[in-house]
Amino acid sequence: MNHNPKLSIERLVNPRSIAIVGASNDARSISGQPMRFLMQHGYRGALYPVNPKYAEIEGVACSPSVAALPATPDLALILVAAKRVPQMLRECGERGVPYAIVYSSGFAEAGDAGAALQRECTEIARRFGMRVIGPNCQGLVSTGGHVYAGFGAPFGVSYRSGNLSLISQSGGFGCALLLMADELGIGLRHFITTGNEADVSLLDLVDACIDDPETSLIAAYIEGLKDARRLVGVARRALDAGKPILAWKVGNTPDGAKAAASHTANLGGASALYRTAFRQAGVIEVCDIADLCDYAKAFGMQRLPQGARVAVVTLSGGAGILATDVCAQNGMSMPALTRDTLDRLRPLVPAFASLDNPVDLTAGILADPRIFADTLQFIADDPNIDSIAIMAAAASGEVAHAMAEAIARVYRATTKPMMVAWNARRDMASAAYRVMEDACVPLFPTPVRCARALAALSTYALARRARAGSRHAARPTRRPVPHVAALLTQGAGDLTEHAAQSLLRAYRIDAPKSALAHHRDDALTAARAIGFPLVVKVQSPDIPHKTEAGAVRVGIRDEAMLAEAFDAVLAGARHHVPGARIEGVLLQKQIRDAVEIIVGIENDPSFGPAVMCGLGGVYAEVLKDVAFRLAPVTHDDAHAMIRELRAHAMLLGARGKPAADIDALADTLVALSDMALDLEDHLRELDINPLFVLPQGQGVRAGDALARPVPQPYAHAGHAGEVEPCTNAVMDG
Amino acid sequence: MNHNPKLSIERLVNPRSIAIVGASNDARSISGQPMRFLMQHGYRGALYPVNPKYAEIEGVACSPSVAALPATPDLALILVAAKRVPQMLRECGERGVPYAIVYSSGFAEAGDAGAALQRECTEIARRFGMRVIGPNCQGLVSTGGHVYAGFGAPFGVSYRSGNLSLISQSGGFGCALLLMADELGIGLRHFITTGNEADVSLLDLVDACIDDPETSLIAAYIEGLKDARRLVGVARRALDAGKPILAWKVGNTPDGAKAAASHTANLGGASALYRTAFRQAGVIEVCDIADLCDYAKAFGMQRLPQGARVAVVTLSGGAGILATDVCAQNGMSMPALTRDTLDRLRPLVPAFASLDNPVDLTAGILADPRIFADTLQFIADDPNIDSIAIMAAAASGEVAHAMAEAIARVYRATTKPMMVAWNARRDMASAAYRVMEDACVPLFPTPVRCARALAALSTYALARRARAGSRHAARPTRRPVPHVAALLTQGAGDLTEHAAQSLLRAYRIDAPKSALAHHRDDALTAARAIGFPLVVKVQSPDIPHKTEAGAVRVGIRDEAMLAEAFDAVLAGARHHVPGARIEGVLLQKQIRDAVEIIVGIENDPSFGPAVMCGLGGVYAEVLKDVAFRLAPVTHDDAHAMIRELRAHAMLLGARGKPAADIDALADTLVALSDMALDLEDHLRELDINPLFVLPQGQGVRAGDALARPVPQPYAHAGHAGEVEPCTNAVMDG
Repeated sequence: MNHNPKLSIERLVNPRSIAIVGASNDARSISGQPMRFLMQHGYRGALYPVNPKYAEIEGVACSPSVAALPATPDLALILVAAKRVPQMLRECGERGVPYAIVYSSGFAEAGDAGAALQRECTEIARRFGMRVIGPNCQGLVSTGGHVYAGFGAPFGVSYRSGNLSLISQSGGFGCALLLMADELGIGLRHFITTGNEADVSLLDLVDACIDDPETSLIAAYIEGLKDARRLVGVARRALDAGKPILAWKVGNTPDGAKAAASHTANLGGASALYRTAFRQAGVIEVCDIADLCDYAKAFGMQRLPQGARVAVVTLSGGAGILATDVCAQNGMSMPALTRDTLDRLRPLVPAFASLDNPVDLTAGILADPRIFADTLQFIADDPNIDSIAIMAAAASGEVAHAMAEAIARVYRATTKPMMVAWNARRDMASAAYRVMEDACVPLFPTPVRCARALAALSTYALARRARAGSRHAARPTRRPVPHVAALLTQGAGDLTEHAAQSLLRAYRIDAPKSALAHHRDDALTAARAIGFPLVVKVQSPDIPHKTEAGAVRVGIRDEAMLAEAFDAVLAGARHHVPGARIEGVLLQKQIRDAVEIIVGIENDPSFGPAVMCGLGGVYAEVLKDVAFRLAPVTHDDAHAMIRELRAHAMLLGARGKPAADIDALADTLVALSDMALDLEDHLRELDINPLFVLPQGQGVRAGDALARPVPQPYAHAGHAGEVEPCTNAVMDG
Repeated sequence: MNHNPKLSIERLVNPRSIAIVGASNDARSISGQPMRFLMQHGYRGALYPVNPKYAEIEGVACSPSVAALPATPDLALILVAAKRVPQMLRECGERGVPYAIVYSSGFAEAGDAGAALQRECTEIARRFGMRVIGPNCQGLVSTGGHVYAGFGAPFGVSYRSGNLSLISQSGGFGCALLLMADELGIGLRHFITTGNEADVSLLDLVDACIDDPETSLIAAYIEGLKDARRLVGVARRALDAGKPILAWKVGNTPDGAKAAASHTANLGGASALYRTAFRQAGVIEVCDIADLCDYAKAFGMQRLPQGARVAVVTLSGGAGILATDVCAQNGMSMPALTRDTLDRLRPLVPAFASLDNPVDLTAGILADPRIFADTLQFIADDPNIDSIAIMAAAASGEVAHAMAEAIARVYRATTKPMMVAWNARRDMASAAYRVMEDACVPLFPTPVRCARALAALSTYALARRARAGSRHAARPTRRPVPHVAALLTQGAGDLTEHAAQSLLRAYRIDAPKSALAHHRDDALTAARAIGFPLVVKVQSPDIPHKTEAGAVRVGIRDEAMLAEAFDAVLAGARHHVPGARIEGVLLQKQIRDAVEIIVGIENDPSFGPAVMCGLGGVYAEVLKDVAFRLAPVTHDDAHAMIRELRAHAMLLGARGKPAADIDALADTLVALSDMALDLEDHLRELDINPLFVLPQGQGVRAGDALARPVPQPYAHAGHAGEVEPCTNAVMDG
């Protein structure tokens, strides 16, 4: 977890003076580069090289040690070999340096000895209250103060200044993003690579950028967050501040994440929780460099649509179809224009034009640019329309120029977002492209990329509206752990169903009528009280999956069947797991006419407790129709989860069945969220499968439940994250 | 469907002379452009402008009519107003012109009168055996003969000559693809836009390009194929010829395809059948311009991998993770290197390198380019590896140049495919990029695009191997229609289950023991013969969905229950559909311990008969876990379909259940394929849901079946396709 006070970055990104510890005279070596890049880009503060080998570097006097520096720098760049890093950090701490960046590799990414070195760095940072970036990182760029404190060719490029701050867990990849964004005309505020995150994490930096007045958009390249449970909180703060976060999360396949083989993990695992957190907090996920740059361009417009209703205006039928596909696949609607708008348009447009949405004006519209401008203006004024995507096809030359002027005029006259897909070659429509760029109309090379970017904008706007509509309560203070939690701590392993049901009762989750029987005679007595039909199941902490063990029988209709089944399930259990500890046989009223759902808790080492809901029954794992939310889960969240499922159609009463009690299911998810937070230190995992959702008004019944306690004293900080270490070459320090 | 002889395009794309009918002196008008573009690009054949208004155009003598031409041209370009097009085509036909391109719009895309004009064009083409491209198209480019016969700025560009032939149903979009491909260095053979396809279809042209020795790769932009049933045949011919087809199919969302609301259509519909056909015939689907260009680059290498085992070699951890994600998501495997290779590599690579796959050599490897080359060569020699993806990150300058030389050397020494993702800016690694391009090593701007292109190559190679391993029999000649087909033609509507089962029996598909009862007493007698438990269902052609109607009861265990159920289902049916025609009540042995699957036939108006298989039961439509294949379906196809389903895990015996009889299920799919072809003219749709798949060796039983006859005399050609008409502006003809 993050034990640090909130990070302030003002002096980190805009230092008045910088010490370069381990600076080198060899301009090609890694340790020779940062000072030269700082000078090359016109950094105006003081530079203090530190290296006992040299008297001066690049004409600047070199100090033999940090202690010997003429003044205390705001920032120290540490470029010495790994084993000497702790000593250098200590010297910085003693000197009162507030910020350090450690570039050297050879830490946690390089085995146990390196990990020990890294822990030492963390301790030194904490002891002195010094904030340390890295180790094993590539540095930072901040355009405002001309700070280019890093190594590698991308630090030799001068980036145009702007409002995007980019935080990256990968140095190499971060640089690739930076270069491409710059090429596409997106201006940079800060670029910071975080390396192994011994002290400062990516989320610390994202959080700090929310408070930076010059940052209006934040991009994050994420390999894995050790402090993932802060993600939703930080991202919601950004959402409230109106600063969109674009996140690129990599390492999403099982090959990368051979996660715990628990029930719930099989249904999604950590990469599903990232996606869940993104959705809960309005983070926009991107999947490639082009996405990130495209979305940055769209958000750069600083306009959000009031709703998801888009008008696609096209000069080419094909482009219109494409844009329609992408809009439909991304939750946007394409309503008809109002009758008023249609009446205004009909006299203007060419005979072959189509005024459905997509509005296909055909290339004929360009015969008179004023008519094109009027047409566009009427569409922008339509109250059915929240945003406009214009497919300019390959329009070129003078016609294109006039068209661009018309688009720019309407863009200035409306507050609705407008974007253009234009696939003429630059040299064939250069005047038009310049008009678009001067007017700040986002321009995309293909209809697909234009529509995807518009959908990202629309998704973000929806998250903003949802957030404004129902501010989530702050995380509730931990409530007293119910007495039944003792069940979790006293046993050696998983709770049996019977024990788990005591836990559920404490959270008002009903089970079918049931009783635990130890002998066949008990069972017959109990059956009279419960009534047939019955299900019988062996209760044993050693048999978590009862169906496979032949330890379950359903459809018991009378006493004779019960007597036979009682013996059979015990025999099955003993045969399947010889020596299993058997607590008895659970008799349970068999439920009919219910939709079988799976619900549960997954207490993730990185994210903390999450609630799960999905299509239940024996094949839940095969069908993988599940939704997750990180706790706390509100009623609105719960209903949104349920709507995400394909199984939602079943709950609504598919094929003539009655509608199921969706409200009771939502209540159950909220109750599980409460339980997950209350028992965070004790409960690793809980599955209720099936949860019988009865017809409306009749509630739910927990058909079977499996609870897995936290195996040992649970320390979140002790769980490794997934940060992928990369490696910098050897230093001349 | 296509009644034309096979199209030969030699004289279409390489005409010795071209007439321009409706040629104009106004260089800005559409009809003024083609002749000027032909001259500008150095077309060497004779040009014959035709227009009674002019004596000459651009210094070339102008004829008043086609009849007055000094010689018969190989190709006529028709640029007159729509209503005059048939007359011009007739004159061309009378003169013996073999090919015409009609640019004019105002045909099927412009209402009934236009559609009538278009039919006239089709008839004229057929009558004279003249092949007509268009109407409402943008023309063609063929680089070999310098033929630039079109209008619009993209025809003013000189395209580099090469081996890609691009056929597009959209003029504007086709041009966009053409421009971007050219920008990325991909050379063009032919570019042909097809417009409304009154005569020549996109598939005709794809088919013709297979026979063009200079074409090695075919790209197709598809909005909808009226002759879709030829798709698999044409594509398989391309597969056999080793000429990959890249297809971009647009219009995939329901907004575009408000298809027939039939059972099966709801489970996928026409856009699923395109995907099915692509998969069956090794067509590579693309989703945006960048895909098409990336894949073209990859196929341009002219190397196919022997298998799906890729080594990702990276200088950056982040890029390695990304490439791994994409490879894993696209069916590629990343096996460990052999022990031999590891033994050779260990002494060479830097201390922090990782020799797992992805092989992370770290930037340190670049210290000595010879070592990098050796490392790469050893990996290329590894027998566990079929292809190599190199993530060069943002390597720049001299180091990058040396690295490129090393890659080029290994590329020349191996026959395995190698690709590179390199995200340095062009100006920072220009020498390196030139080396890659000279060596023809495919170069991509991001790891994601590199890995996707490699996956496309691998998917294609797999399709080639599968095709070589089991050449599909030619479509079997139609067998005699079984006598039971009379059931389909004599009734007014859907077949009842009982009648449908006669049909199934004719194709050796078993049903559970069953009997049709008309009175309660019949039912009791029949039950004694069949045995309990039973299912009872009302049989009525007016009640296709029995469950919703309360016309089904399951779990009938004895005579008393049967008597009660018999009355209840009849009452339910009469209440649900008053006045329904009732044929009786079907008694059926109830099946247990089976996996419930849905199988069926969908006789699509465009594609012809397809076979479907998916997760069955009441919720089949909710869960949409289905696979399709176009008939004929082989046993191998059937097994491949089954493996595509999530339900496959159930059939294998998930959660302790016995494995199901997958072979019998595959037999059933093949039997349905036979039925679909035999009864193509009579059977519109058939669903068996559930098909009970019993444990291995015990076969399958058709639990319920619904057959829908073709409603009226069935004429395939009468079914409209989905071609989206675009519109050209008015002509000066």
